[in-house]
This record gives sequence, C-alpha cells and structure tokens, in this order.
Amino acid sequence: MKGFLISFEGIDGSGKSTQARKLYEFLKEEGYEVSLYRDPGSTPLAEQIRELIINYAMDPITELLLFESARSSLVWEKIFPDLTSGKIVIVDRFIDSTTAYQGYGREINLGTVSILNHIATRGRKPDLTFILNLPLELALHRLKEQKTKFEEPNYLKRVRDGYLQIFYSEKERDIRLIDASRSEEEVFEEIKTITLGKLKVL
Amino acid sequence: MKGFLISFEGIDGSGKSTQARKLYEFLKEEGYEVSLYRDPGSTPLAEQIRELIINYAMDPITELLLFESARSSLVWEKIFPDLTSGKIVIVDRFIDSTTAYQGYGREINLGTVSILNHIATRGRKPDLTFILNLPLELALHRLKEQKTKFEEPNYLKRVRDGYLQIFYSEKERDIRLIDASRSEEEVFEEIKTITLGKLKVL
Repeated sequence: MKGFLISFEGIDGSGKSTQARKLYEFLKEEGYEVSLYRDPGSTPLAEQIRELIINYAMDPITELLLFESARSSLVWEKIFPDLTSGKIVIVDRFIDSTTAYQGYGREINLGTVSILNHIATRGRKPDLTFILNLPLELALHRLKEQKTKFEEPNYLKRVRDGYLQIFYSEKERDIRLIDASRSEEEVFEEIKTITLGKLKVL
Repeated sequence: MKGFLISFEGIDGSGKSTQARKLYEFLKEEGYEVSLYRDPGSTPLAEQIRELIINYAMDPITELLLFESARSSLVWEKIFPDLTSGKIVIVDRFIDSTTAYQGYGREINLGTVSILNHIATRGRKPDLTFILNLPLELALHRLKEQKTKFEEPNYLKRVRDGYLQIFYSEKERDIRLIDASRSEEEVFEEIKTITLGKLKVL
C-alpha cells in the first residue's frame, strides 16, 4: 500500500479541524501509522509563509501563489515521504480550500487555480475528502459565538457554494458531503465509519 | 503612453545590477519619470519572501512558486501603477531569470515556468530586455574576485545557455544580447543608445 491521503474541507465554523484531529487520534489508537498536518503550515517554511498570508494585505493572485508555495513545501517535505512509507496522512484543508476560497470566493479563474493546485501537489489528489457542510446561517452563528473574525457573508456564501460545486463536479474523486449541523459525535461516527470502510478494502 | 518596462537579465557577475542603476540615474537626470526595482523584492511582502528564499532549503517547485509570489506582489503593487501613470520602469531581473535559473538551471518543465510567469505578471512582458552575456570562465573569475558565493559551474552553464535560448527563441519580444565582457562604460554606452532610440519613437 502506498499510503492514504485524507483531506478535511469546509468553511470556518464547520468543525473541520476538530473532526480531523478526532480521526487522527482514533486511527492512532487503532494502531495505524498516521500523520496530521494543516495546510498552509506544518513545515518551518510553510508556517513562515502562513504568517506572511495572515500579516500582509495583498492581491488575490499573490495570495494564491503563497498558498501554493506553502502547499508545495508541505507536500514535498511531509506528505510524499509519509505516503511513500505507507502512512495515512490527514490534512486540515488542501486543494479544495484553494478552489473554494480563491476560485469561487475571490473569483480567480478556476483554470488558474486548478493548474496551480496541480503544480504544487505534483498532481497527487486526496484519496478521500470530507466536506463538512453547514447552512450559511448556522456557520455565521457559530463564528459569532466563537467571536472568530469572520468573512463577509456574501464571500462566505460563494465559498460554501464552491464546495458544493466541487462535490457535484469532481466525480472521479471520492468526496463525501457531511452534514455538519449535527453534534460533534454524530458527525464523527459517520466519518469514522466511512474511513474504516475505505481502509479495509485497501 | 502607457509606460515602458525594461528588464535587466544575466548571470551573477555580468554587471546587470550596476547597469540597471546607471540607466536609472541617467534617465532621471534626463528628466524622465523612472523607477528602479529588484525582483524578487521591492515591496515589504516581496522582501520578506526574498528572505525566505535565501534562508530556507527547499525543493525547486516551492522555490519557483515563491519567486512568482514575490513577482506578483511587485507587479501589482509597483510596476502596474507606475506603468499606468506613464513611468519608465526598470527591473533588475524579471521573468527571464525564472526561465533561465528555474527552467534551464533547475530543469523544471519550461511550460510550467512559462505558465507561472504569465500568472504572476498577468501576461505583461517587458518592452525591452537586456541580457548581459559573459563567457562562463569570465563570470566565474569575476565571482571569485568578488568572493561571491557562487553556484556550481555546470548549473551556471545551463543558466547562461538558457539565456541564449531565450534570446534566440522569443522573437516577438525586443531582447538585446549585450557583450558584457567589455568595460562598464562601453557596456553602458550601448545600453544608453538602445534605450534612447526606443524611447524616442514612443
């Protein structure tokens, strides 16, 4: 087996990072060799790039190129070596975040985003992707409760709709749309069942 | 007139930065509105990206994406506004450096480099490019004298040959191959004459 790459996607407030960590802890306890990374980040260089993205105002194309630089570093330094040694790799955000946020959200040409995703990942797509889907109103409510600095609602709506477009259009990939309006436990139960089902047939 | 973009290219030791500055000073004294930038660099963000490129070891694709991020920032924040206001813009290195160093030097697919150059510059090419050409032996000798940390000779040969390939293949652009083995003054005389000739017909 040449490793297994799982990505978690969704807008802020969807519970994506929590679920990614829960799956990581669960698989580790089950005895699997597993890594958990966040994108952008998880290498010293990618964390520095993440800081630049957060701290500087910039145009959408520069931002896109920086996201892809950080992804390239993560893929090359961590994800590829892990997959080669047969590990399960879980990433909190990956290529679909760029399509949803920079493509649909910032309205950069989707072909441009797709080419850059391909270059940064050398064409390696996730073997399994969970999109945590939430009604927009509920996402905004959760973000307000968490006092997270959140994006303008119209932008967030485009990003959420973008994720749905990815789900409906990329039929050659295994993408699961998860109803994230349920409790943390209910959501995790579904993710766990799907993941174990996939790992068994490998 | 919608500005005029001049790029200086060549391997380290070719005198490119010196000539770029001399042309900048000369045109300023002649009364032209002119800017001088270095790529990567010249915006606060691009200078930070330059530091990352210098300070971290990384794979060639990540390096390429970071160069293009810095270029995108420079193009968007400085070059485009300057050109729109009718200025002459001089850049010390630009797209051809990426083709020569990352494409020919690091042997990244030239199509990939070309797409990224296009994305970062939004397709804007220089109106005039000077490639300062030097026999490899002379470049190595100059770098040794300057005690500059220089690249491995085979790599530098591929880069130098790459510049010649660009000169011979990109016929739709105005690229001038300058014999940089002459004195600083002789080289500048040629660059000055060519530039004034171009500016007069605008």
